[in-house]
Amino acid sequence: MTRIRFPRFCAFEPIEQEELLKQFTEQHVKEILVQMQPDDRTQLFDELPAHLVEKLLKLLPPADRREANELLNYPHNSAGRIMTTEYVDLQMDMTVAKALEHIRKTGPNRETIYICYIVDETKKLRGVASLKNIILANPDQLIRDIMNENVFYVHTTDDQEAAVQVVQKYDILAVPVVDNEERLVGIVTVDDVLDVVQEEVTEDFQRMAGIQTIEEAYFRVGFSKRIINRVSWLVILVIAATISQAILRSYSGVLSSVIALAYFIPMLTGSGGNTGSQSSTLIIRALATGEIDIKEWWRILLREFKVGISLGLILGFIAFAIAAISLGQITLALTVGVSLCIVVSVGNIVGLAIPLFFRFIKLDPAFVSAPLIATLLDATALVIYFEIASRMLSNTTF
Amino acid sequence: MTRIRFPRFCAFEPIEQEELLKQFTEQHVKEILVQMQPDDRTQLFDELPAHLVEKLLKLLPPADRREANELLNYPHNSAGRIMTTEYVDLQMDMTVAKALEHIRKTGPNRETIYICYIVDETKKLRGVASLKNIILANPDQLIRDIMNENVFYVHTTDDQEAAVQVVQKYDILAVPVVDNEERLVGIVTVDDVLDVVQEEVTEDFQRMAGIQTIEEAYFRVGFSKRIINRVSWLVILVIAATISQAILRSYSGVLSSVIALAYFIPMLTGSGGNTGSQSSTLIIRALATGEIDIKEWWRILLREFKVGISLGLILGFIAFAIAAISLGQITLALTVGVSLCIVVSVGNIVGLAIPLFFRFIKLDPAFVSAPLIATLLDATALVIYFEIASRMLSNTTF
Repeated sequence: MTRIRFPRFCAFEPIEQEELLKQFTEQHVKEILVQMQPDDRTQLFDELPAHLVEKLLKLLPPADRREANELLNYPHNSAGRIMTTEYVDLQMDMTVAKALEHIRKTGPNRETIYICYIVDETKKLRGVASLKNIILANPDQLIRDIMNENVFYVHTTDDQEAAVQVVQKYDILAVPVVDNEERLVGIVTVDDVLDVVQEEVTEDFQRMAGIQTIEEAYFRVGFSKRIINRVSWLVILVIAATISQAILRSYSGVLSSVIALAYFIPMLTGSGGNTGSQSSTLIIRALATGEIDIKEWWRILLREFKVGISLGLILGFIAFAIAAISLGQITLALTVGVSLCIVVSVGNIVGLAIPLFFRFIKLDPAFVSAPLIATLLDATALVIYFEIASRMLSNTTF
Repeated sequence: MTRIRFPRFCAFEPIEQEELLKQFTEQHVKEILVQMQPDDRTQLFDELPAHLVEKLLKLLPPADRREANELLNYPHNSAGRIMTTEYVDLQMDMTVAKALEHIRKTGPNRETIYICYIVDETKKLRGVASLKNIILANPDQLIRDIMNENVFYVHTTDDQEAAVQVVQKYDILAVPVVDNEERLVGIVTVDDVLDVVQEEVTEDFQRMAGIQTIEEAYFRVGFSKRIINRVSWLVILVIAATISQAILRSYSGVLSSVIALAYFIPMLTGSGGNTGSQSSTLIIRALATGEIDIKEWWRILLREFKVGISLGLILGFIAFAIAAISLGQITLALTVGVSLCIVVSVGNIVGLAIPLFFRFIKLDPAFVSAPLIATLLDATALVIYFEIASRMLSNTTF
């Protein structure tokens, strides 16, 4: 058999493509659709009647389907973008036997038959019934009597995260998606929810490491895109590091008279950054999983304030001991120890406050990357260190 | 009496369940426990103090109690620990009609009836049939003729992650769990998989920030535990920073003759750490989602080597420009620029190689926290910087 060369397919006009699709087996059509460029696909879908588009969408793997829905006009990352339109709908006045017959007839094409949605004549969502309830019910019962009227649903324009939260919280297999007039237009199934969770987690990881979101799989990202996604934050960080340079320059007097102060710069800046990245990670993750609520900010701050001071005292003492033993200069060691204690306490609160602030102004708490927090803390650490050093070491030279 | 609606109880987190249980009479508690699915029960028991678990176990009917005890005996984080024993099993010689009757009879107590497992007389797993297939089949057909013999399963002692990967990869609602003799003993359902994914992601986040795993919700972790979980890495990092201190001391000659070298220490160490944390995040996440395979290590290294050098050249040039403009010393600016270029290239490869190495020796790639990688890179960056400085600035004073 001659293999169909898909790129050629795109060379046809959508109207000719429609003709061609009719000639192919489902497997062929699927292969063609998967290989088509998304924009070509949208163009094709635009030409096709709605029922045919629905049929074709169903052939696509979830990622492609999401893309296709996306281009069919729902906002980015919305529930509408990831939903499938292949659900089972039932009427309230159907008997259980009739409903089962309907499920048997339409089931083969549906994404799931385990959760059925009950709609009225205007397509408004009225209830939900699991196949389990239907199977276990008496064949003569009416669907209206076994359905559950308390349906959790999301709107097409809601963030996909809303669908994830409903599925996760209520351990359900799918969540219905309705339009502005509360009419059922699709469902988001649990397998797609799992994919979304992994995607969002990857996004959080990347943001926190100062990488622009990369949606493609590792080896799919081209060389130049990989660089562009990483370089912007790195450049910002190098430029932000000039603040540290300026601070060090302004303290060059005390630095050149006590050159040993420079030895502890990496320890001081490192500890501030490390403490800050611990506290920001804890908060960002707790906000993402819903463990904490932004309304409790005062409670979180108070709690972490105490934790930060305790960590500062422990680490400050260790730094003091290291400096005292290695240099034998108690005043310098004290400077290092006291500075580290303050730097750690401040780093802890800053690492916590920045994500909380971003959530407060309704931006993603992972928006500011941990490296940026660390770079800002570097500058803060240096000011604290050299202010204390200028005071404590004003009469000393080594 | 108001009837307690049990499904609602399961929607609470175990920790909230614990609070609720305290408010109830013993009779109520008993009713709730009996109605809970075995896996939810295990999850609750995991959270409770041992003496309370014993008390609750006594409330259970003998069969349930035996089951609960067994589930509690599987290793922590194993598939056995999160499975439920409430699945539907069918025989190969049943007709579809007979199977449906069996499902109707046993279904009300099962965690899911949508995936049925076919076992032989010795309880060995022989096949799987979805309720969809059963419903759509002819009532006279035999289960053996509609079942799928290619069942993906996991063993009780496998890591829970194995169950997650099967469910996620094949978009199935449950994965069967077998014992050493391939006998079916339970299933892990997709709702539990979602919970496990969130748990493991939190663990990765914490490890990468240098925090010992905290399984409890944010506000549940006591003050001293919170400190213990964070302090150990911070102490290691402060001690590791003494390497940087020793390096700076050994270069005190060149440092005191060109004090301006100190100004760029935060920029140099910061950039190495930031680049390393980007590459380690990309690799750790790609390994976690299965996008890359450790066997491709050479391909990954080659690819990232090129990316690292490109990033190094871009950032090195920017650093050169900043240093040249702010200090007006071309030789010093060149030292900074060349050093930064090398530091970024090295940081990129180290950030990548460490997680790959850990996966290679079969440890968690997130085992070494980003802060430790950054601290080790600090020391490397300083050696590179001062070696270049000693060579380039040997005849210069500022």
